[in-house]
Parts: sequence; structure tokens; C-alpha cells
Amino acid sequence: MVNKLRIIPLGGMGEIGKNMTLFEYGRNMLIVDCGSMFPENDMWGIDLVIPDFAYLRSRADLIRGLILTHGHEDHTGALPYLLREMSLPVYCSRLTRGLAEVKLAQEGVSDRATLNTIQDGDQLRLGPFEATFFEVNHSIPDGMGLAIRTPVGTVVHSGDFKLDIGSEQEGAPDLAALARLGGEGVLLLMADSTGAERPGFTPPERIVEDTFERIFAEASGRIIIATFASLLSRVQQVIDVAVRHNRKVAVDGRSMVDNVAMAQEMGYLRIPPDTLVDIRKIDRLPPSRVAIIATGSQGEPQAALARMATGIHRHIEIHPDDTIVLSAQAIPGNEEPVNRIINQLIQKGADVIYDKLAPVHVSGHGSQEDQKLLIRLLRPRFFLPIHGEPRHQHQHARLAHQSGIPWERILVLNNGDMLEVDEESARVADHIDQETIFVDGAVVGDVGPAVLRDREILARDGFVVAMLAMDAASKAVRDVQVISRGFVYVRESEELIQRIRAEALRVAQEAPPSSRTAERVQRALETFLLQETGRRPMVIIVSSTASVG
Amino acid sequence: MVNKLRIIPLGGMGEIGKNMTLFEYGRNMLIVDCGSMFPENDMWGIDLVIPDFAYLRSRADLIRGLILTHGHEDHTGALPYLLREMSLPVYCSRLTRGLAEVKLAQEGVSDRATLNTIQDGDQLRLGPFEATFFEVNHSIPDGMGLAIRTPVGTVVHSGDFKLDIGSEQEGAPDLAALARLGGEGVLLLMADSTGAERPGFTPPERIVEDTFERIFAEASGRIIIATFASLLSRVQQVIDVAVRHNRKVAVDGRSMVDNVAMAQEMGYLRIPPDTLVDIRKIDRLPPSRVAIIATGSQGEPQAALARMATGIHRHIEIHPDDTIVLSAQAIPGNEEPVNRIINQLIQKGADVIYDKLAPVHVSGHGSQEDQKLLIRLLRPRFFLPIHGEPRHQHQHARLAHQSGIPWERILVLNNGDMLEVDEESARVADHIDQETIFVDGAVVGDVGPAVLRDREILARDGFVVAMLAMDAASKAVRDVQVISRGFVYVRESEELIQRIRAEALRVAQEAPPSSRTAERVQRALETFLLQETGRRPMVIIVSSTASVG
Repeated sequence: MVNKLRIIPLGGMGEIGKNMTLFEYGRNMLIVDCGSMFPENDMWGIDLVIPDFAYLRSRADLIRGLILTHGHEDHTGALPYLLREMSLPVYCSRLTRGLAEVKLAQEGVSDRATLNTIQDGDQLRLGPFEATFFEVNHSIPDGMGLAIRTPVGTVVHSGDFKLDIGSEQEGAPDLAALARLGGEGVLLLMADSTGAERPGFTPPERIVEDTFERIFAEASGRIIIATFASLLSRVQQVIDVAVRHNRKVAVDGRSMVDNVAMAQEMGYLRIPPDTLVDIRKIDRLPPSRVAIIATGSQGEPQAALARMATGIHRHIEIHPDDTIVLSAQAIPGNEEPVNRIINQLIQKGADVIYDKLAPVHVSGHGSQEDQKLLIRLLRPRFFLPIHGEPRHQHQHARLAHQSGIPWERILVLNNGDMLEVDEESARVADHIDQETIFVDGAVVGDVGPAVLRDREILARDGFVVAMLAMDAASKAVRDVQVISRGFVYVRESEELIQRIRAEALRVAQEAPPSSRTAERVQRALETFLLQETGRRPMVIIVSSTASVG
Repeated sequence: MVNKLRIIPLGGMGEIGKNMTLFEYGRNMLIVDCGSMFPENDMWGIDLVIPDFAYLRSRADLIRGLILTHGHEDHTGALPYLLREMSLPVYCSRLTRGLAEVKLAQEGVSDRATLNTIQDGDQLRLGPFEATFFEVNHSIPDGMGLAIRTPVGTVVHSGDFKLDIGSEQEGAPDLAALARLGGEGVLLLMADSTGAERPGFTPPERIVEDTFERIFAEASGRIIIATFASLLSRVQQVIDVAVRHNRKVAVDGRSMVDNVAMAQEMGYLRIPPDTLVDIRKIDRLPPSRVAIIATGSQGEPQAALARMATGIHRHIEIHPDDTIVLSAQAIPGNEEPVNRIINQLIQKGADVIYDKLAPVHVSGHGSQEDQKLLIRLLRPRFFLPIHGEPRHQHQHARLAHQSGIPWERILVLNNGDMLEVDEESARVADHIDQETIFVDGAVVGDVGPAVLRDREILARDGFVVAMLAMDAASKAVRDVQVISRGFVYVRESEELIQRIRAEALRVAQEAPPSSRTAERVQRALETFLLQETGRRPMVIIVSSTASVG
């Protein structure tokens, strides 16, 4: 047993350590976060991607606890899946706990976790690890960074963070406390790289409220604001501005309704009495007295905003005097559906305000100057950029170098890399192979590359099944039935289907006896279909021997 | 017959009049552009989207000619499909003609068009239309705008344009000529809206060259620059900078190789002797003497850059001292593959420079000030924003209003709207219903919403086919065969497949005689599969009566 600290970032697909990080010292393990990712566009039909728990499975008895830095899905979404395999004590802030409780109850695994609430300044001893929590700004309240004191030194994990230093908001990070931590000596800083391509500081949340003020001052009809259901500070801003402008607020979209109710109950939202109004009753108010907070800012087709845009919303029909604000930025991959919804709303005559036109959103992640400030406050010996794709890590590494960290103390890792750290050194000592674990429907891990490849072929050109009816006695092919889906519009392609059938029958009957008839027919049909249509549908040949009783 | 000019924008999916615009006066028609669009991400398996030619088909004998404003696919890509239906005289600038000739030859329709070359200042009489051409800046050389004199007045069509007024490039638009045109009186301006969300002027191409200068001055290894194959001015910049920095230039990627050869032959690229080097021979040169211009800046998986990033390029292996420049911006919908390639290249150790980090690309479309300047120079009576989605049209309309056009003279159209214009008025008089015409493989128009819906289901959860073998005599189901693809990994799900088979057999055999057995089995299997897996694959039931000879 060596006296080294091991740090292993796991999961997060292209992002490093986004979903989970393991800390190991001797026979003790501490887990930070347990999140899930949404699939990329070419992960056909997949619902979620979660970390590979293989390494944890064999070490379940070493785990001293699991800390959640904040309540977003990419840090909490895989918790139910891990809890199905092992019971764990979980530590998180009050709001994160509220969100986790809802999730664990939905998934029926509430009894598998002991949830413990921690807050700013708390110290928590878990085996050889002593974690101190400090509040950070992010796009959800109650986000935490960690200072983990270990036998080899102090490791700081930023969580998802920005330094909203110009803000009057509660929960702005205590820069003096961070500087004191730096004074005590930080061995390693692991910091959020997401915003590393953006120059300057991330603008304060304040500027969004200023934009809302202008919009509310000018709009004569209803104001509909779409944002993330977890972005409770934004929801608070809408409520504050609406109250100042004498508008009632309706909440729309299931996750928004649930989150607002929960946050109000827990005291994370201050809503004056008589402010909220039922979405079904807004038509009783003059449009100039109504504001609506809705889900759907990422173009999700089932969410409230998309239903308004396509005219299938049960309670809201878009009018030309509506003002609609998309208070969010499209996550890469979502640009197409977001733009489509903007276009649809504009075509209904509404005035649509989005990030390209006005400052209606700011990021929850620090930009280059936030990142440099954190590094300069903490002055770590080693630096590890996390929470971002390689392009962000790479930029963050440059910023760290500019902030005085020598290149040889800057560590750029891949998921699964095992970093070994002692008082003097840090190096990648090993690598734990990670599979990409897909959740599809109710099943975890049964869909892999082979199934995705099939779905890709089916998505592109559909399939053709040719069923060869064999004569039981002579083994000759007597007839062929053809079915297809996603290949051609069958009703208008009857003649093509008949030709496919004839071609299959011809090839099958001309095949020498006891040859591989199915293979021959398959190859022949693939060639035939490519020639006739320029397409490559999946071709499947099934033989059924007629076995009549 | 009324003495009105009719203008109908067609095609372009979400963009208005992007692919084609019709001008009709009496029994005369002039077509401007004939382009195709790339499909959106949810147009499964579609290769191209082209305009609906139904309206043109019945009026083929009225067509006086077709003008191509420039050589990009979204303005020329559907020409072969239209020429298959009718022969036409086509008018375009020299480079556009060179590109069109290659395309028509590839598609075997060269004999269906008479190609005529026009240039800046040319006047062309086509029935009652007299078109004058003026050069505009765009991301391909030889782009043209049109002033079309008609019996009711002059209509100006900007083409895709920007006003690169700070540029020393040839072909900068003649602002004085535009002002003179404005002085003569412009009835209607139809102008490119694409950049209407961007404040200021589009930066001059010059700044890209300045960035290249810095990059070439600093890089010690090879420099690989990916950009659009049609962006010949960018290719020229790379060559100029490479020559100044004593580097040879290799060209990589089929469309880039073809375009560079064609443009060099036609005199659109100035390449000093001994500058170009075969990509297969670059390893004989020191890395510091090599620059490579490659395709793949949009993340296309088969293009040169993607093959370098994934390590399957035949001639180029990425090294840590390579500098790679993505001189392009990701088109909405392509962000994911572009980011993935950037990450892969960074993970191979290369220094990757892209638009978020440095000004390595400028748009080919004018920004708000370009757009306002064009309006102020031409002072049209009516204004029609084209070439952009509704969000761009909407912004462009605002800019026109700010530039002095009254709201009632600003016309925002949809594709298929028929604008009727005379000396005094302009209004939408009719609408021509437009189908979205999909090209899939070699076939045009046979894939519609039903096939796409099937592909979507198949993409998400695959399919299950249950084949019921019926007894010819008793009509009872004797056996069931099950095949599936894209649903579960069959090799590891043998037990599930057996249970599906058993369930189908049970339901089929329990069905009352002469009931709709197939429907019953289908519904039962859909329920069973959803319960077992949480998935909704396409379920197809086939009955085959065993008919043994």
C-alpha cells in the first residue's frame, strides 16, 4: 500500500470528470458526483449515458461516502442507477437534497441512500478525507465547491462554478476564504473548464434582470419567458420584475411547476402572496397583467414552448402582441430545434427575444478571468482542468500557465486516467478502461455499438425483409414474401416491391442446391436495390420451411 | 391579363426564396437560382431537399431564362433536377458557369441547358425583363446581384451578398453604381437577410489574412487549414501567406482538389509556380515548409479533416507540432461533429485554432450595417427580405424600417406566396402550395412524411418482426419466428427473444377463430415489449400460410 492519493475522473462522455470523480487513499474511497449525460445526436434512441460502475463494483466496501456538488442532472442523474447496485451515504446541500429526494423516490431507491445535508463552511470527515464546503455561483442555487484535506495535502474541487463577484445575490463566493485556503497551501486544484473559450468575466446575473426590466417596461401584451427549470435564480428574477410591473405569474411545463413548488416550499424562491396564477385562468386577466414562466428553452418537442409554437398547447395560443423571451443559450446539438421554434413563434406574429438580440441569458460557468482569479487565489501546486471537453481543458491549461503554474504541474487527463498524487508529485499511473453505458428505456447497458449501427442503417434507408418459403421435401424455394418499412412509400411502390420479390425468387431458384441461398439472395437484393434506388436499406432474408401438420 | 409583376419565392425549406425565385409578367417567366438544401437532422436519410417544380411544370413554355446569382449549392444544386424536366437557357458569371458545367456533366444533363456567360455591367433582355448584373462580395468569387427592369419598375435582387468595402479585393461592389441605380428609382429591393442578427459591418476578409500571418509566423510544424472548397478567396489567402512564409501548399479532399484545379485553370486563383506539392510527397519536406488546405471544416465524417482526426487518413498522421486551423463557422446542426473533431485533434496533441479562439473566419453575408447601407443606397419603394429564416427576415424588416422604409411597404413572405407588384402597390395575392421534395439516393420525391416517421421509429428503437406460420387446413397458428434489428443486442438477449416468441404464440393461439389475429398479436407484443424493456420498437406481424407442394 503506497501513501498516495489516487484521483480518477469517470463518465461524462466527451467531458472530463463531469459526471463523477473518485478519490482513493489506502482502502478508502470518496465519490464526488454521480451524474448522467444526454446522448449526442448520433446515439440513436438512447435516453441517457451514465458512468461505467465496473471499477466501483469491486470496491463497494471501501466507499466512505458520495458528495453531490449541486443538483443538476449531469451531477446527480446516475445516482439511482448506482444505488440499485449499492447503498451509500450521500452528502449535499439542502436544495440538492430536495432535488435528489424527488428523483430517488421516483426511481424507487429512496431506501438505498442515507441523505445528509451540508452547508457552506461545514467540515465532514470520511475516513482519511476531510471535506470543507464553500458556496459557488452557478445556474442553480446551493452549488458547492470542496476543499478535501487528505494525508498528502489539500485538493480543491471547484464544482461547476462562476465567480459572480459583481452580484448582490446571496451565495456569492467568499473570495477571502478562498484566499485563506490558498494561504494554507493547496496541493491540487481541479477546476471547471467549461467557459475557458470565453474571454473576460462571465457577466453578472444582474444584466439579465436589467434586460427583463426593459422588456417588461415596453411590452403591452403577455410576456412569456422560457428557461431551464433548474435555473431558480432566473425564475426569481422573472418573479421580481413581474411583481414590480404589476403582472401575475403563471408557471407552465411539468418540471417548472414541480421545481417552483419545491423551491418555494424550501424557501429558495420568494414569491409575494397573490403573485402566482393558475395557467388555466390567465385568460381572465388582461394580457398586460400576465407573465408566464415556461419550459422548453432547449427546443424540447414536448415542452411548453414547443407546444405553444406549434399551436397544440392546451391553454396558450400565441398572439401577435405576445412577447416571448428565450432566457437560455442552445446547448450544442440543440440549435436546429431552438431556431425552428423561434421561427414558428415569429411566424405567429409574436415578438421573440433571444440571446443573439439581447442579453437575456448569462452562462453558469466562469469565463477566462473567473478561472484565472480562482487559480491566483488558491495558488495550487498542481492543476487539473475538469468539466469540459478536451478543447476546454486545453484552453484552461493555457490559462493556468498564464496564471503562474508551470507546464509540468498542469495535468490534462482523460476519463478513466488514474492520477497518483503525493506531496511532491502528480502523474498518471494507470488507466481504468471505461465503457460508454447507455440507458435505453428501462434497460441499462444492453445497447452497444452493434445495435446503434443497425439503428443508423435503419434511420437512413429503412429495411427490406424477404421471406423465402421453402418446400420441406425438395428444399426448393417455392415463394417469396417481401415486407419493408422506412425504405419507400409502399403504397406507391407496389411495382418495385413486386420486382424485388421476383428478383429474390429468381436468385433463390437459380442457386445451386445446398448452396448458401440466403446469403446469395441477400447480396443480390442489396445490389438490385442500390441500382434501382441508390439506397442501401438493411436487407434480411428469412427462410421458413413449410411444415404443415 | 393584368399588368402586374408577380414574384414567387420557392424552396429553401425554412429559408425564404433561398433556392429559387420566379418573376412573372404576362406570359413571361424569369427564374433566379435553382438550388438545393442539405436536410435537417430529423430528415432521416434524406440527401437533398429541392424546390417543388409543380408550378413550373405547367408553365415551361413561358420561361425566358434562368439566372444563377453565384455558384453555391443552395443556388445551383437543383438545376440538374429541373433540367431533367425541361431544357432551359441559363445565364451566369464565368466561375458559376465553370462550376455548373462540372455539375451538369456529372448528372448527364449537359445537353439540356444552354449556358451563357454574363459579367458585371452586362445587360440581358429576356422578354419583358431586362437584367443588369452587378458584382457583390460573398464567400465565393463572381457572385452577382441583379437589377431587373420590368414594365412596372426596377426590382433589385441582392443575391447572397456582403459589402466588403474595406477590402482591396477585386470585385468589391461599386457603391456609386448602386447609388446611381437608387437615383433612377428602385421599385422593390429583395435583399439577403442571413446576417440580420449580427450588429455592425461584416469584418473584412483582410482580418482573416492577418490572423493567418500571425499563425504562419509562429508555427514551427505543419499548418493544416480546413475550409469550404467553394471559398476560393480563402484558398487564395492561404496560398499568399504560405508563399510569403516559404511554405509549399498541398491540397487535400476531393472537392478541394477539383475546385482548386478548376479555379486555377480559369484564372480565379493566382498560384506561383512550384508552390503546389502533391499530398503524397509532403513527408519529403521539413514540416516547417508545409501548408495543407483541406476539406472537412463542417465535421463531415468522410472529409479530409475528419479522417486526420480519427487517424484513418492515408497520407497524414497528426503530430503534436501540427497547427490546425478551422477557417469556417459550424453551420447550425453541425456543431456536434465539428466540436468532436476539434477534440480529437487536440487529443492528438495538435494546436487547434478555431473561430472561438481567433478571427480565422468571416461570414460571406452582410451584417446589419451592410444591410442598412444597401437599403440607403437603393432607397427602394418596397422592401422584401429574402434568404434567411423568419427570424432573419423579421430582423431585416426592422432594419429596413430604421432605414426609412415605412412598415406598410415592407413585405415579409413565405415560400410559395405570390407577390403582385405594380408601380403603386405590392401585396400577396395568392399562395402556391409547396411540397418539400426530398432526394434520397437516385429517387426524387418518393419519400414523404410516412416513410420519415417509420425511419424515426426505427432509429429510436429498431423493429421486431413476428412471422406467424399458419396451418393451411386448420387456419391455426402453428409456430412463430421472431427477428429483430436495432432493438436489443440479439446475441445477449436470446432469452428475451424466446419469450417474445412464446408471447406471440400464446396470443395467436388464444385468439378466437377468424378474429383479427395479426392485430391482436401486434398490440400484445407492443405492450409486452414496453413492459419488459421500456422501448417501443416497430412491431410487424406477418402471416404465412404454409402451402407445401
